[in-house]
Amino acid sequence: MSETFHIVPESTHNALVEAAYQHRGYTVDEAAAASRFSAHASRHGIRTHNALKALHLDHLFGSAAGGCKPGVQIEKKESRFAASQVWNANRKLGQATAYEAMDECIALADKYGIGQISVDNAFHYLWGGGYVMEAASRGYIAYTNCTAALAEVVPFMGKFPTLGTNPHSWGFPTTDAVGFPIVVDWATSVIAMGRVQQFLREGQPLPAGAAVDKDGNPTTDAKAVSALTTFGAHKGYGLSLINELVGAYIGGSLPTLRSRWDQHPEEKHTPAFYFQVIHPDAISGGDFALGRDQSKNVKAVIDDILGHGNENCLLPGQLEAKAAARSEAAGGLLFSPAEIEAFNEVAVECGSTPWNLSDFPVAN
Amino acid sequence: MSETFHIVPESTHNALVEAAYQHRGYTVDEAAAASRFSAHASRHGIRTHNALKALHLDHLFGSAAGGCKPGVQIEKKESRFAASQVWNANRKLGQATAYEAMDECIALADKYGIGQISVDNAFHYLWGGGYVMEAASRGYIAYTNCTAALAEVVPFMGKFPTLGTNPHSWGFPTTDAVGFPIVVDWATSVIAMGRVQQFLREGQPLPAGAAVDKDGNPTTDAKAVSALTTFGAHKGYGLSLINELVGAYIGGSLPTLRSRWDQHPEEKHTPAFYFQVIHPDAISGGDFALGRDQSKNVKAVIDDILGHGNENCLLPGQLEAKAAARSEAAGGLLFSPAEIEAFNEVAVECGSTPWNLSDFPVAN
Repeated sequence: MSETFHIVPESTHNALVEAAYQHRGYTVDEAAAASRFSAHASRHGIRTHNALKALHLDHLFGSAAGGCKPGVQIEKKESRFAASQVWNANRKLGQATAYEAMDECIALADKYGIGQISVDNAFHYLWGGGYVMEAASRGYIAYTNCTAALAEVVPFMGKFPTLGTNPHSWGFPTTDAVGFPIVVDWATSVIAMGRVQQFLREGQPLPAGAAVDKDGNPTTDAKAVSALTTFGAHKGYGLSLINELVGAYIGGSLPTLRSRWDQHPEEKHTPAFYFQVIHPDAISGGDFALGRDQSKNVKAVIDDILGHGNENCLLPGQLEAKAAARSEAAGGLLFSPAEIEAFNEVAVECGSTPWNLSDFPVAN
Repeated sequence: MSETFHIVPESTHNALVEAAYQHRGYTVDEAAAASRFSAHASRHGIRTHNALKALHLDHLFGSAAGGCKPGVQIEKKESRFAASQVWNANRKLGQATAYEAMDECIALADKYGIGQISVDNAFHYLWGGGYVMEAASRGYIAYTNCTAALAEVVPFMGKFPTLGTNPHSWGFPTTDAVGFPIVVDWATSVIAMGRVQQFLREGQPLPAGAAVDKDGNPTTDAKAVSALTTFGAHKGYGLSLINELVGAYIGGSLPTLRSRWDQHPEEKHTPAFYFQVIHPDAISGGDFALGRDQSKNVKAVIDDILGHGNENCLLPGQLEAKAAARSEAAGGLLFSPAEIEAFNEVAVECGSTPWNLSDFPVAN
């Protein structure tokens, strides 16, 4: 990385983030969930979902727009199904909701081998990979999907954006096997709308096949982009559709109206979350070759996949693990001068003392 | 379709397929599962997994090769997890195993809202979409994945094939909403190895990005193809890796040794299956806009996705539903003259009376 990064102690980061959330009316617990999540994202190099982005999204769609309601209680509905729960989040902060759902899903998996929690009336949880990574670090196979805030993606062969960028996130407890949890985590669009804006600013063409113009024709001209496309043609379309279907079964409403609170008040405008956790013992046949245990068997399989000349391939989650090691070695979270400047705007907003760039040493 | 298809009564098809499986040593029940599955595939236009392909695969990897054992019993292991089961299939016929697993998964979902069954020492179940489609027709959300028979796919940025074409299949109970179950079902490679052979025969170039040569460089020359690539670059790689990881947690062994019974007898050589079923009531928040019920809400969401100029988009599973309607209208299964000729080779193999092409009317 050629960019300069400064080392901000996690406690310094968390104090400011918590102050900012509390200033916007969130409770102490909600603010703590937000700072915990942002620190986790920044520690793993996830700059697209750091505290600055979280606060920006909260401003655009959340506490300022009515999409998120500080201080509300989650309503946990009665269910006749022992390994399943359905929650009405009442638009509670996404990070707080997701942490709680993952904890309860783990408790269900401990008992039933698998557990699921569906969340209606949710607010954007930011980076699904963060939640499954934590669950995987605790020894579980975890999965989550959600419907994204806005419909920005056309169905395969379509013209008009009616799907969210709808991400899927899977985490596997592979720390013993490879040193970190494998986390498969991505949006179902080729690129995010933020990247289109970046190409537009830089006057650069988009990668081929990433977007369409208003007639549904492929375009690489950032100025002509009307909507994004799904990755892998019909395959990514199917994956994006899954989130919309799961959201619809839970209680989500029309994707083109999501987050658009000014349109059709008779419809719902909230995303939905789906969480699932599997206890690895619950899928183990116990019959591993050469007397391996389950974790050693997983390691043997990964070694085989990354052997035979494939030694330079990366595992999903490896870059995030590398970033976490870098943060750990630095003893803090790494932010660019521009990011630190943006944090100081946050400090001004909530009446905190701004940071001095010179207080934060430059990372190697 | 410009190809000519003849209408073969399902009972005629099933009698021959059952005779062929019994001739190879399979029990009456196993042969019935095989014919039921093949009829289902052919009815839905899935020519890549019809009875001819099933019998060919059984010859290559199954009863003739030791990968499949006619007449064995599935061992259902004790589990401390109520919503989970792990089975040792003892290499039982994949179709029979998968049907039984899906039935039991549905019973678990009825009780716990979600249920999972993992299967070790399995034999190829052919077309995962068929099982989730049936479960979806019965009103459930269903998912399955498996490790494919051979490692033919390179990891992203890799050189050597160490991953299977590893498919994922999801089914949704959308018959009330759209007239058929939505089935998202595909391999994680861009194309199958069979397509490469077809391009080779026809002297045609491959689509770009579908394969690599022996040095891991992209190639469209069918003669130079050494391995397949995953769709969607690192995203499809992650999806393919999921099957290998799930297989490894269950009890699968090194992917490069799968189906290669002559190599490393100390390792296992079998694929693994994973099944999961969700009861739609178990994820329903019950709070649908405009007083809709769950199914009408799903329909409203799908109508929104396929509206706004997207009316020509297809839903996953729609082509299969169309093929099924065509079979239904014809009153039988549709096979080409070449396929009927191949069925007659099967008849000769098992001592059945060959078919007369002229007995089967041509479909419109």
